[in-house]
Amino acid sequence: MALVVQKYGGSSVADATSIKRVAQRIVATKKAGNDVVVVVSAMGDTTDELLDLAQQVSPLPPGRELDMLLTAGERISMALLAMAIANLGHEARSFTGSQAGVITDSTHGKARIIDVTPGRIREALDEGQIAIVAGFQGVSQNTKDITTLGRGGSDTTAVALAAALEADVCEIYTDVDGVFTADPRIVPAARKIPRISYEEMMEMAACGAKILHLRCVEYARRFNLPIHVRSSFSTKEGTWVVADPDSEGTEMEQPIISGVAHDRSEAKVTVVGVPDKVGEAATIFKTLADAEINIDMIVQNVSAAATGRTDISFTLPTSDGPAALSALKKVQDRIGFESLQFDDQIGKVSLIGAGMRSHPGVTATFFAALADAGVNIEMISTSEIRISVIVGQDEVDAAVGAAHRAFDLDADQVEAVVYGGTGR
Amino acid sequence: MALVVQKYGGSSVADATSIKRVAQRIVATKKAGNDVVVVVSAMGDTTDELLDLAQQVSPLPPGRELDMLLTAGERISMALLAMAIANLGHEARSFTGSQAGVITDSTHGKARIIDVTPGRIREALDEGQIAIVAGFQGVSQNTKDITTLGRGGSDTTAVALAAALEADVCEIYTDVDGVFTADPRIVPAARKIPRISYEEMMEMAACGAKILHLRCVEYARRFNLPIHVRSSFSTKEGTWVVADPDSEGTEMEQPIISGVAHDRSEAKVTVVGVPDKVGEAATIFKTLADAEINIDMIVQNVSAAATGRTDISFTLPTSDGPAALSALKKVQDRIGFESLQFDDQIGKVSLIGAGMRSHPGVTATFFAALADAGVNIEMISTSEIRISVIVGQDEVDAAVGAAHRAFDLDADQVEAVVYGGTGR
Repeated sequence: MALVVQKYGGSSVADATSIKRVAQRIVATKKAGNDVVVVVSAMGDTTDELLDLAQQVSPLPPGRELDMLLTAGERISMALLAMAIANLGHEARSFTGSQAGVITDSTHGKARIIDVTPGRIREALDEGQIAIVAGFQGVSQNTKDITTLGRGGSDTTAVALAAALEADVCEIYTDVDGVFTADPRIVPAARKIPRISYEEMMEMAACGAKILHLRCVEYARRFNLPIHVRSSFSTKEGTWVVADPDSEGTEMEQPIISGVAHDRSEAKVTVVGVPDKVGEAATIFKTLADAEINIDMIVQNVSAAATGRTDISFTLPTSDGPAALSALKKVQDRIGFESLQFDDQIGKVSLIGAGMRSHPGVTATFFAALADAGVNIEMISTSEIRISVIVGQDEVDAAVGAAHRAFDLDADQVEAVVYGGTGR
Repeated sequence: MALVVQKYGGSSVADATSIKRVAQRIVATKKAGNDVVVVVSAMGDTTDELLDLAQQVSPLPPGRELDMLLTAGERISMALLAMAIANLGHEARSFTGSQAGVITDSTHGKARIIDVTPGRIREALDEGQIAIVAGFQGVSQNTKDITTLGRGGSDTTAVALAAALEADVCEIYTDVDGVFTADPRIVPAARKIPRISYEEMMEMAACGAKILHLRCVEYARRFNLPIHVRSSFSTKEGTWVVADPDSEGTEMEQPIISGVAHDRSEAKVTVVGVPDKVGEAATIFKTLADAEINIDMIVQNVSAAATGRTDISFTLPTSDGPAALSALKKVQDRIGFESLQFDDQIGKVSLIGAGMRSHPGVTATFFAALADAGVNIEMISTSEIRISVIVGQDEVDAAVGAAHRAFDLDADQVEAVVYGGTGR
């Protein structure tokens, strides 16, 4: 008998019909002889509706109260799901984040899990019940106030509970079949990835693949917990995120590139004419860190000898742009830079693949493909298993498609390769 | 500095505009130098909408999960109210029933409060904050599950918290100006009662006056806590419910009758041809008690000497009718009664007044007024401060109007009495 943790997102429980469908799926898993813990998000648009109500009473609602408000969403969906399961003749008990023992820090709106003490969940399982747990929420260790975990919170709840319960697998249900080699809306020939490593999945998540949040993959890696990303609309196998994807692999050779991710949510700030003195860059990034702004890529131009000045560009979430510009303007006189430029018409395209480690030619192939497609590269950043470039936002689709083709990821190309025997 | 507990019902917080209006009222109370604790119900139709969702997933949802679901309603309204207050520059913190220390038994759907431990509320007040508490809900002492208090639950929460906090007053806000001598929709000349005793208010509540629930008045009497029932749409004084309404009275003499209440929610069951033996009536009512059916009035006819049989009639909530009939049919053979009759076309009209104690002619005046109005009396029940009659449901309005006039409760009649100097 296995212990399975399943997570269903808002679109999987959007209405009564969906909830009943999910209930049947859960009962089937239970009937197959598993212990089942289910983590559920708020129904469809509930969170947006609650946020809208909040805006109607206050333009800047206190974080504590916003968390209190939003957690009503999962309370509704989890109770309904427990009822739907009961209606199928199986016992289910719903638990809030607090009742499930999801202990967090006190940062309302983006609390971090610091402990999971699922005593009541274990009790319910021991009594043969299905446990339904509210995703996205917890309780502050210090203030005992209700908190929310922020983006990716429900996935993180599921993984954290699965780790604490030593579950065999954490199944993340979504509305697509798994993790793809690229966004199928951009690359129709994109293929489902059967198995992928935590590290690659983390790079994918960090580079804009929205299917799993970075936090939840990080958490799973720490506890070596297998994640199975799959569709709630079919029983097909999805994508397994594991420590060693090749151990059970049927493919003869690991592909060099696992996937191509893209992200249109970033903007670029350029600090123009920074005096080329020791410590100026440090001051700039200390200023941004103090304003709690997360920087992604950074490029510093070679200093022009004639002027003794240089430009520093960095990317950040577009929504943090105004705060970053305002923070930097306050230190303009002290640093003595000339001006600030802001460009939100950029996009990031990233190649991710553990195979890169042993294939030094990847960068060259990637850049050649972009050049052939007429895409201009503005910034470059690399890790051991990733290459990212910043391009114009309207060139993102072309860049993703070109990269996908260049590394033989297109589904029909793979067929061709097999039949053609090119020895790939 | 006084400690004021205010309770706002669902219609007072039906939308963002109403919530902002209530927030202003709360802040005004705080600014006047009071400590303020607010108990709030779910917004307008939220509870009905949640019940409808529950019905869509399960025809008979488990009580535990239904309570989990419904308590989302107050969670939403209380968080929004706290935000609206924060937006006015005052600090407010919202608390669930569990966080506020409302400890109950485990009877889902109609839990009873067994203790109130408002440590976190006191803390918030000590820090100068306004505390917002979810009405209608608590947490089970034994199972730690979330419970709801059932009908009148939010009023009861307010009174229970006020008692535990030793508040100076519990203000119950509603959409009318206070407690009236009769339902103004039936008797347009009905007047607001300025002060009324707990006992009279309890009789009014038990007899169908919907403005305050019996439970909450009982609770207030036990702790001698003054209740002020008033409109959330005006600043006029409403009705004070207190131990001794005459102590500060400006009226020269207490009226004999405080008010006329009516109730159309009951039905009458007649057990026909019960053998007139010792213990048969006891068996009937033991059977009903075992089925958890609350009986209101009972009449046993004088036994007919010829047959040795009698009829027993009783009233009960119409919704309990089917359960009562079914329970009685099971014991028909054992008791040997002939048949059962069920009549849901009845209404109860009650006169309530502490002055009755010293005015023995009340019953005669009441019955004469009903006879003059052509109203037939089916059953009669009395207490020290109340006379109730069962009449045909279509005669309720006539009976209420006749009684109101007969005891000089009509507003214009009172004027007439004063001017006429009849010495009433």
